[in-house]
Amino acid sequence: MLEELKQTVCAANLALPKHRLVVLTWGNASGIDREAGLMVIKPSGVEYEGMTPDDMVVVDLDGNVVEGRWKPSSDTPTHLELYKAFPSIGGIVHTHSRWATIFAQAGRDIPVLGTTHAAHFYGSVPCTRAMTRDEIEEDYERETGRVIIESFSRTDPEEVPGVLVCAHGPFTWGADPMEAVKNAVVLEEVAFMGWHAIAISSDLEPLQKPLLDRHFMSNRSGDDY
Amino acid sequence: MLEELKQTVCAANLALPKHRLVVLTWGNASGIDREAGLMVIKPSGVEYEGMTPDDMVVVDLDGNVVEGRWKPSSDTPTHLELYKAFPSIGGIVHTHSRWATIFAQAGRDIPVLGTTHAAHFYGSVPCTRAMTRDEIEEDYERETGRVIIESFSRTDPEEVPGVLVCAHGPFTWGADPMEAVKNAVVLEEVAFMGWHAIAISSDLEPLQKPLLDRHFMSNRSGDDY
Amino acid sequence: MLEELKQTVCAANLALPKHRLVVLTWGNASGIDREAGLMVIKPSGVEYEGMTPDDMVVVDLDGNVVEGRWKPSSDTPTHLELYKAFPSIGGIVHTHSRWATIFAQAGRDIPVLGTTHAAHFYGSVPCTRAMTRDEIEEDYERETGRVIIESFSRTDPEEVPGVLVCAHGPFTWGADPMEAVKNAVVLEEVAFMGWHAIAISSDLEPLQKPLLDRHFMSNRSGDDY
Amino acid sequence: MLEELKQTVCAANLALPKHRLVVLTWGNASGIDREAGLMVIKPSGVEYEGMTPDDMVVVDLDGNVVEGRWKPSSDTPTHLELYKAFPSIGGIVHTHSRWATIFAQAGRDIPVLGTTHAAHFYGSVPCTRAMTRDEIEEDYERETGRVIIESFSRTDPEEVPGVLVCAHGPFTWGADPMEAVKNAVVLEEVAFMGWHAIAISSDLEPLQKPLLDRHFMSNRSGDDY
Repeated sequence: MLEELKQTVCAANLALPKHRLVVLTWGNASGIDREAGLMVIKPSGVEYEGMTPDDMVVVDLDGNVVEGRWKPSSDTPTHLELYKAFPSIGGIVHTHSRWATIFAQAGRDIPVLGTTHAAHFYGSVPCTRAMTRDEIEEDYERETGRVIIESFSRTDPEEVPGVLVCAHGPFTWGADPMEAVKNAVVLEEVAFMGWHAIAISSDLEPLQKPLLDRHFMSNRSGDDY
Repeated sequence: MLEELKQTVCAANLALPKHRLVVLTWGNASGIDREAGLMVIKPSGVEYEGMTPDDMVVVDLDGNVVEGRWKPSSDTPTHLELYKAFPSIGGIVHTHSRWATIFAQAGRDIPVLGTTHAAHFYGSVPCTRAMTRDEIEEDYERETGRVIIESFSRTDPEEVPGVLVCAHGPFTWGADPMEAVKNAVVLEEVAFMGWHAIAISSDLEPLQKPLLDRHFMSNRSGDDY
Repeated sequence: MLEELKQTVCAANLALPKHRLVVLTWGNASGIDREAGLMVIKPSGVEYEGMTPDDMVVVDLDGNVVEGRWKPSSDTPTHLELYKAFPSIGGIVHTHSRWATIFAQAGRDIPVLGTTHAAHFYGSVPCTRAMTRDEIEEDYERETGRVIIESFSRTDPEEVPGVLVCAHGPFTWGADPMEAVKNAVVLEEVAFMGWHAIAISSDLEPLQKPLLDRHFMSNRSGDDY
Repeated sequence: MLEELKQTVCAANLALPKHRLVVLTWGNASGIDREAGLMVIKPSGVEYEGMTPDDMVVVDLDGNVVEGRWKPSSDTPTHLELYKAFPSIGGIVHTHSRWATIFAQAGRDIPVLGTTHAAHFYGSVPCTRAMTRDEIEEDYERETGRVIIESFSRTDPEEVPGVLVCAHGPFTWGADPMEAVKNAVVLEEVAFMGWHAIAISSDLEPLQKPLLDRHFMSNRSGDDY
């Protein structure tokens, strides 16, 4: 079942090492079929090399495995929380990509400092608050989703399709799994350039609003470079 | 028409990912046939992989498409402004290459700190002033060209064949499209080394004038390493 | 003799340049057969390219060569000290990998700043104290092992499977040689991200204890991303 | 004539882009036949790709071309000065490699901060003084050689086989051209790690003398890792 989505999710997972966003097995991508009420996600502990669509795991929205020979990624409950809270997204990517993770470890938002950022993220990429001991010890992966959602109480997840989980790493999303991958690539690039701009000029102002508007709107309407 | 120029411009565009100057589709190269009054430029939204000369777009100097099956790059008006203001240049490259863009995001010129810079850019590579709200909202791409030209009111664009558009990214140019690519490669290298020299010794003086003269003149007269 | 272990140790050595952990010949991996009382280690001064299991050197626990056509790595006495002091480990890797070595040169522990670190190292990766003149001049490689062991007087080497030798470089270990390689890869990644998190936010607190516990325990029990 | 040396020098030049020490054509390697009183060096302005031993240029010790279809590298007089002043060296490499050049641009010596440095350079790698206007304007390349030699008035060039020319870039040397290449590789690595150790801990002391002695002497006597 869901053969096409399994292919897409597998391709999205394989795109992560190709774009050098993951080391070892530190990352996962998923996609949702909202009509069927099912999510497809990377299996836990399987290496990227040689991974095929048949390795993907299908779960329902409570996280029960419906199909697949492996355990689903341990981040499954986080993905499910995000799909439930952000009804327009169709794919999610989680990595420990170097530059986004550095901001996450520093507990800092990535400010908008240039048009590259503005074209894809309409404002700072937020870093979540630190989680409480209870959240960590009781239902950690689900609470990770909730603390992400909390960061978007006044932000549209379609306008800022990514987040940094404090001290952990980034999640990105999009209309489908490959768009989530693309946003993970952009986030990494934006984090890289942001880090170095800040390091050499620590008192930078965020991008002026008209330029932020201009580039975000242009990109959305399909304009390209 | 302009088959040879289309081949050159296509080759220049393909050289950008090869030199790791672009991520995704963030960049474009163009070339001009001044006799014919026509510019050839990368199409908008076409991926580099598999791009051929037939994908290039031919426009007249008002930006009207004369030939090609795609829309021209959205940066077309910026390129046209530069060709009009800088009569000796034959090719232009725009990228969001990491290190030049970092200086652009920091709003800083790249100072001449070494002979690598001096051999190719006869002085600082300027960062443009911030654009006004009107410039951004009304005729943004053309105004981007104008703000670049403004930065060259007292600088010869043949002596400093590149610029940083504030908070955006670099443009470079040359006698032909491949020279513009080469200058983009050099600019990135110079930005990389400049960033790190400044970061470890913040009070560096620019290169002494005799050394700047010596290396710029030597390179111009065809001397090589 | 020990054909299988020689193959594993050879594969572990070849994995070092593949993971870009070594430049030239700066690194070595070993494995131990505790029952036989023998250690297999990379030969001294042999290039990685073309290295085969037959190039490996077998030594007894006093460092006497038992088999092999080359001299064993000059770091052999350090490896032997560690195998004797840490009875549960089966493989050791030494490199001059860039980011771990930078912390070693700065004489700093790598603090736990994120969950990537926490999943593999249950606390700071310690940097050894500076060695005394006597230790350096008399039995240097063995004393290097001893100063490492001294750093683990209150730390379980299974929980923190790596160390930075002050002004020198990292050693990592594991249940077998390939796990030692994996820990070397992780250590490098953790050092990279730690360096940049510290450089941009110098007053970072270490990861909160519940998160450290959670990620270390999850990884140990086989959970994956 | 000198066919074997031309092959070695060609191989040394080709090793430079392979080790990512040069961008475009910014680098050159040479070798000397002291008995014949002839130096072989890279031609000026020839690309690395497709370069063959026949492209090498043979000059006498006054810089006159004795054989070859190209002009010799414009750095020829610098190489000749070094061969004359340092009688034991057989090969020289000049690059604008990123990290060594950053120290050159910052006008700073590379201090000995670790054993990687100590094994190959017995002390700081010096940065030359700034050249005078006269030196730059009159006989620049030869004066570049002289200012390097001045930096070695109290240092043995066999013990410290490299230098940073202020605001320019590194020269390294060795018993033959390939050893000069190896020293260029090591210098780059050492500069990389030194930069980052200093950037995160600005008050580092140089390596303690016994450790410097130990690693330099071990490496010299053929010990390996």
